[in-house]
Amino acid sequence: MTTPTEHWTREQLADIRTRVERFIDDIVIPQEPAPGQTLDLATRDQLRVAAQEAGIFAPHVPQRWGGLGLPISHWPEIFEAVGRSPIGPVVLNCMAPDEGNMHMLSEIATEEQKRKYLSPLASGETSSCFGMTEPHPGAGSDPSQLQTLARREAGQWVIHGEKRYSSGANHAGFMIVMAKTEPHDDPASAGATMFIVSMDAPGVSVPRQIDTIDRTIGGGHPHVVLDEVRVEEDDVLGEPHQGFRYAQVRLGPARLTHCMRWLGLATRAQEIALQRANEREIFDAKLSEQGIAQVMIADSEIDIETSRSIIARTARLLEDDPRAGSRLSSIAKVHCSEAVHRIIDRAVQLCGGDGVSMDLPLAQYLNEVRPFRIYDGSSETHRWAIARRAAHRQRQNAMHAVGTDQ
Amino acid sequence: MTTPTEHWTREQLADIRTRVERFIDDIVIPQEPAPGQTLDLATRDQLRVAAQEAGIFAPHVPQRWGGLGLPISHWPEIFEAVGRSPIGPVVLNCMAPDEGNMHMLSEIATEEQKRKYLSPLASGETSSCFGMTEPHPGAGSDPSQLQTLARREAGQWVIHGEKRYSSGANHAGFMIVMAKTEPHDDPASAGATMFIVSMDAPGVSVPRQIDTIDRTIGGGHPHVVLDEVRVEEDDVLGEPHQGFRYAQVRLGPARLTHCMRWLGLATRAQEIALQRANEREIFDAKLSEQGIAQVMIADSEIDIETSRSIIARTARLLEDDPRAGSRLSSIAKVHCSEAVHRIIDRAVQLCGGDGVSMDLPLAQYLNEVRPFRIYDGSSETHRWAIARRAAHRQRQNAMHAVGTDQ
Amino acid sequence: MTTPTEHWTREQLADIRTRVERFIDDIVIPQEPAPGQTLDLATRDQLRVAAQEAGIFAPHVPQRWGGLGLPISHWPEIFEAVGRSPIGPVVLNCMAPDEGNMHMLSEIATEEQKRKYLSPLASGETSSCFGMTEPHPGAGSDPSQLQTLARREAGQWVIHGEKRYSSGANHAGFMIVMAKTEPHDDPASAGATMFIVSMDAPGVSVPRQIDTIDRTIGGGHPHVVLDEVRVEEDDVLGEPHQGFRYAQVRLGPARLTHCMRWLGLATRAQEIALQRANEREIFDAKLSEQGIAQVMIADSEIDIETSRSIIARTARLLEDDPRAGSRLSSIAKVHCSEAVHRIIDRAVQLCGGDGVSMDLPLAQYLNEVRPFRIYDGSSETHRWAIARRAAHRQRQNAMHAVGTDQ
Amino acid sequence: MTTPTEHWTREQLADIRTRVERFIDDIVIPQEPAPGQTLDLATRDQLRVAAQEAGIFAPHVPQRWGGLGLPISHWPEIFEAVGRSPIGPVVLNCMAPDEGNMHMLSEIATEEQKRKYLSPLASGETSSCFGMTEPHPGAGSDPSQLQTLARREAGQWVIHGEKRYSSGANHAGFMIVMAKTEPHDDPASAGATMFIVSMDAPGVSVPRQIDTIDRTIGGGHPHVVLDEVRVEEDDVLGEPHQGFRYAQVRLGPARLTHCMRWLGLATRAQEIALQRANEREIFDAKLSEQGIAQVMIADSEIDIETSRSIIARTARLLEDDPRAGSRLSSIAKVHCSEAVHRIIDRAVQLCGGDGVSMDLPLAQYLNEVRPFRIYDGSSETHRWAIARRAAHRQRQNAMHAVGTDQ
Repeated sequence: MTTPTEHWTREQLADIRTRVERFIDDIVIPQEPAPGQTLDLATRDQLRVAAQEAGIFAPHVPQRWGGLGLPISHWPEIFEAVGRSPIGPVVLNCMAPDEGNMHMLSEIATEEQKRKYLSPLASGETSSCFGMTEPHPGAGSDPSQLQTLARREAGQWVIHGEKRYSSGANHAGFMIVMAKTEPHDDPASAGATMFIVSMDAPGVSVPRQIDTIDRTIGGGHPHVVLDEVRVEEDDVLGEPHQGFRYAQVRLGPARLTHCMRWLGLATRAQEIALQRANEREIFDAKLSEQGIAQVMIADSEIDIETSRSIIARTARLLEDDPRAGSRLSSIAKVHCSEAVHRIIDRAVQLCGGDGVSMDLPLAQYLNEVRPFRIYDGSSETHRWAIARRAAHRQRQNAMHAVGTDQ
Repeated sequence: MTTPTEHWTREQLADIRTRVERFIDDIVIPQEPAPGQTLDLATRDQLRVAAQEAGIFAPHVPQRWGGLGLPISHWPEIFEAVGRSPIGPVVLNCMAPDEGNMHMLSEIATEEQKRKYLSPLASGETSSCFGMTEPHPGAGSDPSQLQTLARREAGQWVIHGEKRYSSGANHAGFMIVMAKTEPHDDPASAGATMFIVSMDAPGVSVPRQIDTIDRTIGGGHPHVVLDEVRVEEDDVLGEPHQGFRYAQVRLGPARLTHCMRWLGLATRAQEIALQRANEREIFDAKLSEQGIAQVMIADSEIDIETSRSIIARTARLLEDDPRAGSRLSSIAKVHCSEAVHRIIDRAVQLCGGDGVSMDLPLAQYLNEVRPFRIYDGSSETHRWAIARRAAHRQRQNAMHAVGTDQ
Repeated sequence: MTTPTEHWTREQLADIRTRVERFIDDIVIPQEPAPGQTLDLATRDQLRVAAQEAGIFAPHVPQRWGGLGLPISHWPEIFEAVGRSPIGPVVLNCMAPDEGNMHMLSEIATEEQKRKYLSPLASGETSSCFGMTEPHPGAGSDPSQLQTLARREAGQWVIHGEKRYSSGANHAGFMIVMAKTEPHDDPASAGATMFIVSMDAPGVSVPRQIDTIDRTIGGGHPHVVLDEVRVEEDDVLGEPHQGFRYAQVRLGPARLTHCMRWLGLATRAQEIALQRANEREIFDAKLSEQGIAQVMIADSEIDIETSRSIIARTARLLEDDPRAGSRLSSIAKVHCSEAVHRIIDRAVQLCGGDGVSMDLPLAQYLNEVRPFRIYDGSSETHRWAIARRAAHRQRQNAMHAVGTDQ
Repeated sequence: MTTPTEHWTREQLADIRTRVERFIDDIVIPQEPAPGQTLDLATRDQLRVAAQEAGIFAPHVPQRWGGLGLPISHWPEIFEAVGRSPIGPVVLNCMAPDEGNMHMLSEIATEEQKRKYLSPLASGETSSCFGMTEPHPGAGSDPSQLQTLARREAGQWVIHGEKRYSSGANHAGFMIVMAKTEPHDDPASAGATMFIVSMDAPGVSVPRQIDTIDRTIGGGHPHVVLDEVRVEEDDVLGEPHQGFRYAQVRLGPARLTHCMRWLGLATRAQEIALQRANEREIFDAKLSEQGIAQVMIADSEIDIETSRSIIARTARLLEDDPRAGSRLSSIAKVHCSEAVHRIIDRAVQLCGGDGVSMDLPLAQYLNEVRPFRIYDGSSETHRWAIARRAAHRQRQNAMHAVGTDQ
């Protein structure tokens, strides 16, 4: 997938990591909005300039488009470091949905599309959104329910449908839209196609948005109506009718980068809880020396290290064998999304009354990460897919065993 | 403890329950604030009048003070029914901290104090707060750290200290304050005394409050400063120096009524999730017929019924043997607070993206109940106490066994 | 169901409980087989005589058949006390499957059948087994798969089929057999009938048995083949074609008495762990004073008390409303079977290396209770049923709500 | 630590893995003892010859001592493949305690000691045991409690003490013994020294052994009495007084190889369960297609992949930075030992009644792995250590942060 043309020495990587950590600690964290508040755009833009000056902006983007060009196997520790601040990813321009869109554009787009869309996206001049999820009974946990249609008409494509949970749509310059299409040479095999649609195009509107419990990054989760929106042939992303395959290209890494970023926030929560546990005396001893607290601290360490381990392994696999990596990313996503939630929940508990108050950011962190057990495929949908793959593997092995017996 | 002078037939109890359920469904729920919003006082007062007219106001208060006079063994099913709405308890005037204060006043107060404080509290004319928790390193998980002092001076008591998490203090008419005192006949054995302090008394101020993630009932969790506040001998609640004992009188039932109310909210969340699961089709079947959802639904049913069972048993025990009941209430509190959180968390998950949005109230319910794992003794503090009692019991039994062997 | 004709005072019940506890402690526990060994029949019979002399034999059996005649609402604390020894229930003759069979016989059997089967069963002269579960694909988790057939022939019934997991069949005098039958007046609605079949009857054989990890009570889990076994009309238990209904009569209480007995064993495990925790010093403090151990001890106390609470509530409900009690017993069974396993698992862990050795009985206790999460309906089958009932309840309530809206 | 002098290509590693998997499937599994039975020595030796002929014996041992010489970063997938059979590790001679002893000898021993002890151990001519754990109150969870003493006397060392849980002692040729010693130049700083002691030496006896629930590999867990046992200066392993440091050299990898082997057994249990789930129909569908089973299958897949990931990462770290690797191995051990137990427990549950019977090996697998949550440092001891390290890290970071602020 990502062609790791750029080679990196350990020293270079360690240097980037150190610079990112310092930038987050020294520049970003002091500018975080108060718990429950939203980052304002002016602060965001000022911090982005600082990140560009620090030479750490868009670490995942190829160098020719202005990023650091790190291959995906090196993303985990950088993204985790960035994620220690809930506003870190947006400052370094490696936040969903833009990050996943940049990745997909750099993998699939034409040179012309890259110049037109990837370049300003990577530099932060514009932003984007992704139009996959639809109002029930459309595409949700089951993407095959896709209801948005695109038909060919007079050399153009006409897209009609409605998307929801289109995070970022309020400010986005363009949307990558999944729509159902039929290959004209074979009407029987319906597929899906990805289109790049300008948010200014006639027929695009954002009638309402869903407010959710995550607050730090504004913009909500808008509905986007596509009412007979016309786009050109050049606005097809990749090959027509290959949308489901491309969605996988996007989903595997996109799931995993979420894991990386949220793991960063979980380690931040653990630090806050440890600081409290090291300071607070109760029943004549430091909280951090009391067994009941130690169990919680240790369980969070275990959750952190198992998450870190499966993220690292999945990232390497995504580089070596994207299909296998995508499968493993499903397991990583369930584990990390649940582990991250447990870690922050324990941190809240360790901080007692302050933990559920706005005097500490932990309760809001809990609200920031809770949706991740649902977004990008809920834990339940992934478990279903994981179990089916396991059962399939057993049947394959059994057949193979029979075959070799003969 | 509660003298069950009033006898109740099954039919009477069933009738009260039915009337409460209907009132909550038909009158209260339609007036609930939107998710994330706070009940305004005008709506509260109007609903309270309706509850009084419906003859279900203050169900736990003795009849001579205007309540229904239900003994504690009959509170569970009524309080659970009330708790189905997050504003139900405040409407029926059986919400913390007033409910616990009413209970303590009716158990301990003098006739004069009851007329002066319990009567207007029961009727809703005034409200109250409870001053126990203090800023660190004062009384928190470890009540023996009590720092607020009261000394006798010229026939009065002078109270000095600071309280926090004094829920309701912003609107309260009076506060029941725990303060450290020394019995004059035995200065060695320091105790604590409970005082009834008017919020208007000179020296009482509310400098700031802690905002927490529960939002439905306003008022936050204020700090209350008591700066050389003078009260009379008549303002001592119960006997001097018996404060820790009285705190137990309050804590056992107060913990349990929290369990009852929050269990009600958890059953509401389960209903919302079941409605969704019965309506929503996915992968060609109703969600409620899919095994992965069924596991979650069943786990919540188990959590509901085990909570209901230990609440019912503890309530009966509190009536028969208050000390044993108070011990069991500690176990009930840990189980129910964690079970309630799990139930609502599963309901959120079952409702997918809508579950974490403000289109459904579930995400806010999660924020309403999360603090309950910390307030009234955190799960960890209770576990510590439960384990110590178990170890003590084993040592007692072992000694007894040795004794009977001889 | 059980007609509580015999009234009991609190003092009488406390006296029985005390006598049972002493008998278990002083007489039964010293005679327990070593961990991993099986109770021999001679010891069993000698202990049964002692139990009869102590006046505590067959506590659940009506007095006219030689038992104590306790109604089911009073079984929980007695059965729990008996279950503290893994051989207690067989000594007091309240062990499955005999106990469930006695209960069913006293509820359903004719006077003649009671004299012939219940009387010697209650006195311990004979023993019995229950023939419900069949080899796959017969009746297992899904009882409607019943493959054993009974047909009427010349005034007799001819039974043909195979049962497995027929615990106790090796020594039993008779078996209560579930077989598929058709009501002759309505061949369309196939039902099932219960038969009392002598183990000596021609055609009955026990070809093999399944060895399982529970060891304390011998006899394994035999297959029983019924090869054209002929019984009389008088051997029908209850009405023909009502077998599934009667199975419910048996299953509700039978599940719950399992919970009671195993909860007793779990409390024994907790005692052993507490004794160790009170004695053993590590890192300069008693294990029982170390937080990491306290969490485990407390979690087991919570599991014990929630189990005790739902058992008590279900037992009362089985007396008042058997159908509702049977439904609740399904929830109680899942909770208790899993709680009991957790409690013993924690006790093993608290005892370290000795916990997994035969120097303590805990590892064997773990093997004794592990199957209970599978027998009598696995946790998964019950969860499925619990979820279906919950979904059904929501639909009923929704229809009712619509109805009352009009 | 392990000097990875031998370089391996991907193809070579894949070839070894394939040969090991085939050997386990085709040669070892057909010779496994029945569930609950013990591998007899004759079968073991015959299988060892086969393993040597297959060129896969002692994969972890340097080539000059007859092994394959794989560096530790390549052990995980090989050991996991070996562990799919509970007798696999003993057949390939990579079973505890020999494997850990070989590793320690190859790291620390003199050339002469390697010839004398490592060479015959690697070839299977002899076996060994490790004498660390002592009867209470000696070395157990807290190694600093070491009670076995060694004193210098006339140019020899005289060892006196008692060990327990000395697995393998019944057949061992020698024991590596930890004993407390004092450096003669500094009597204040007591240390420990490792000795190689022949099991034939005068004063060594094996008075009794502890039987535990793991059965497949015989030999139990003997007590070993060391009664004034005399050894030479040459029998000191490594430097005197460095025993605790060497114990860490052994413990980190030894813990991790346990994880690898048991993970193999867990994957075997998952295969058995999947086979059953793919074959068995219930309620009109394959078990593997039912959501309640799918949750369990998926949870086990998640446990398998997270275990695999943290094992792989820890193995690489042990090679690059042994101290950091040893710390991470503590986390890996807790996660894997608990994950492995959960996986097998779910497999038992998925197989229903057969799961707890001796018709399948799963119940015995459960007994094989249960002790691993206790041996090599219980989950609780590791959690305590993990929490202390986390709290220490936070204090270091805080000091560092203060330092850089200036």
